[in-house]
Amino acid sequence: MESPYIVIIATGSEITAGRSLDTNSSWMANQLFELGWKVKKFIALPDNPELILSELQNLKELTKTKPVLALMTGGLGPTEDDYTLETVLKLSGKKSYSVEKAKIRLTRVYESRGKQYSDILPTVLRQTHVPEDCKILDNNVGIAVGFVEPIGANSYLVCMPGVPSEMKEMFTRRLTPELKRLYPRENLVQKTKWLWNIGESLYQKDFVEKNRENLFSDVEWGVTANRGYIKCIFQSNDSERLERIVNELEKQYPKIISDDVFSFVHEELISKQLTIAVGESCTGGLLGKKLTDLPGSSSYFLGGFLTYSNEMKESLLGVSHEILSQFGAVSMETASSMANGIFEKTKADYCISITGIAGPDGGTDTKPVGTVWIGLKTPDGSVQTHSYIFPGNREGIRENASNTALFLLYQSLKQRNI
Amino acid sequence: MESPYIVIIATGSEITAGRSLDTNSSWMANQLFELGWKVKKFIALPDNPELILSELQNLKELTKTKPVLALMTGGLGPTEDDYTLETVLKLSGKKSYSVEKAKIRLTRVYESRGKQYSDILPTVLRQTHVPEDCKILDNNVGIAVGFVEPIGANSYLVCMPGVPSEMKEMFTRRLTPELKRLYPRENLVQKTKWLWNIGESLYQKDFVEKNRENLFSDVEWGVTANRGYIKCIFQSNDSERLERIVNELEKQYPKIISDDVFSFVHEELISKQLTIAVGESCTGGLLGKKLTDLPGSSSYFLGGFLTYSNEMKESLLGVSHEILSQFGAVSMETASSMANGIFEKTKADYCISITGIAGPDGGTDTKPVGTVWIGLKTPDGSVQTHSYIFPGNREGIRENASNTALFLLYQSLKQRNI
Repeated sequence: MESPYIVIIATGSEITAGRSLDTNSSWMANQLFELGWKVKKFIALPDNPELILSELQNLKELTKTKPVLALMTGGLGPTEDDYTLETVLKLSGKKSYSVEKAKIRLTRVYESRGKQYSDILPTVLRQTHVPEDCKILDNNVGIAVGFVEPIGANSYLVCMPGVPSEMKEMFTRRLTPELKRLYPRENLVQKTKWLWNIGESLYQKDFVEKNRENLFSDVEWGVTANRGYIKCIFQSNDSERLERIVNELEKQYPKIISDDVFSFVHEELISKQLTIAVGESCTGGLLGKKLTDLPGSSSYFLGGFLTYSNEMKESLLGVSHEILSQFGAVSMETASSMANGIFEKTKADYCISITGIAGPDGGTDTKPVGTVWIGLKTPDGSVQTHSYIFPGNREGIRENASNTALFLLYQSLKQRNI
Repeated sequence: MESPYIVIIATGSEITAGRSLDTNSSWMANQLFELGWKVKKFIALPDNPELILSELQNLKELTKTKPVLALMTGGLGPTEDDYTLETVLKLSGKKSYSVEKAKIRLTRVYESRGKQYSDILPTVLRQTHVPEDCKILDNNVGIAVGFVEPIGANSYLVCMPGVPSEMKEMFTRRLTPELKRLYPRENLVQKTKWLWNIGESLYQKDFVEKNRENLFSDVEWGVTANRGYIKCIFQSNDSERLERIVNELEKQYPKIISDDVFSFVHEELISKQLTIAVGESCTGGLLGKKLTDLPGSSSYFLGGFLTYSNEMKESLLGVSHEILSQFGAVSMETASSMANGIFEKTKADYCISITGIAGPDGGTDTKPVGTVWIGLKTPDGSVQTHSYIFPGNREGIRENASNTALFLLYQSLKQRNI
């Protein structure tokens, strides 16, 4: 079957007014790419039923010439400016009904607040409605039900909530299997590797261009730039060919290559029953936040210290006044002393310290904005320190620093296994 | 003259593949809103000349029924996949020419690298080309020249580089005066207020519906839901009417209303020379991260403690074993004791503690997932504690908890000023 012409539509006046950035469309395009499909167009529209209807009518018209898959987010909420259901009913001429399971879920939420079914406003109840004869996408995170509405030959309009956490859960758990059923794909295999502190263009020139002829025939490749690392994605029907690419990549970049460090660190610390503690200066808590993003992190994350001021570095982590005045807060000596201080207070197996200049102020000629020292005390008692000059603005430098700290932990954990 | 139908188009396969987030469109929509215009549609397209041309042809067709203003970014660079100029020439049937000033600029760049005019590749030189008879938007940051191409009655296609710094400078300095000349504007005023821990639908019913007749004529309103709060936005030509709405809102919701708490807390702590320290359990560093997002936060943020485990609550913050075993880690007593412990160790003016159950595991009948206690020790020595049951998944609960902690701090700072 022909691959569908895929359009992603985001609705919401906050988006077209520039008050809110649409991150849903980009996230979905990425997921679809990993499933082996490319998106032809993003559209964002204000909460205006005429504009939305006219766009959907154009897409319906288009289904006469090719299979169309339209993924729309937003407009399923409980307020007046939520028009998705109404618009889809106009488009299809169908009626809607309330999904029993969603109605029960909603009633329970009300009951837990000491209210009852009759207290539920009609606009709130509307969130449980879907058009007749459509595929229901139930919502495990929030209330609004999603659905897949046929709009032509092999053509579907998927409506999902605009709240990212609800949409993502619905997309992954409910929509993905549905799409695989609706549009059978060739048997694509995918490999993903991360490379640290290297630019996309350099990677493209030094690896992709260099190996284009001998390795890349029949292989689709993509790169996603992140803070501190790039994700290199390869897709093909030929899994052996992908193995060869990954081997070549590992050969060329042995020191900066990794798998997903977040999940590796999480699983490895749990399975080896290792503990970790942190001491953060310029990242202000971001590393701790990342280490506790996943449920179950309490089995390894003991805690940490936010030593933003020099006084706190001294009083909480015992960094000596001499070190701070002689070498400065952003130095190998301070990072190392912080790591030792974390260990003294927590006895964690791994102790990570971060100290740096996130900017925009505070940079000097010898220590420009972006300078970061990371210390890592490992179970053998030794402390490694690493220094970086990260690019980007304040947010970028902080993201870079905490991601790179996790990469250093990843490398150390990998080393243990050899 | 009628306001134009405004469409913003972003071109770039990296956008529709989800590898890169289009922030240009949102930025431009914001600028246009402040100029008094609303955007009707965002479109993002891959670097595919047929898809781009077909979209522009549709817009040209639309100019027969109304004035259209299309703002397009991207595709003006020097690589093979930059198709904007070629596509516009196809659309208009025009030829292009090289803008003298841009050519000189480019030559100077080459000369500064020890090269000369004849070294410039044709694709690089193409960046200095624009269609005949268009308005030139010169580029003060990079090389590629932008332009305004007439596409119908009172209708224009604006092409600008996709590099944000180049586009923004060009938009502000060159395009804005041009647009003001081409289209008359509405004189819109805007007010924004935040309401905490209230649903969009309840706000709509209790405030918007109730006051629709007496307050809301000629006022546009919108709501954006966030973690812990909703942003209520009002727009009108009549600033007095907006004042009345905001007064009414303050009267109806005195305890849960705020301005932007992030910037208020930041400015207030700096101007009053107050300090703050935190102790975080379930948020794992997220509150510290938020408190250090803005440059200059080192003047008030001393540091903090990530006391994820009970042992750390005892050893770092001196929470007694009795409190933890009698009341549990998620309790008023623990939150309060943590706040006192933070003060003991840091002597900060404000000490905030957070302890809760972020889930998905760990909930009980009496303390379900989402239960969070927040403690706040204020400069007068007293400790307030507040408990919540936040909705959402792990990420949502953690965001809710740290945002709400900032709201409590906001309220306490406001109180001082009365």
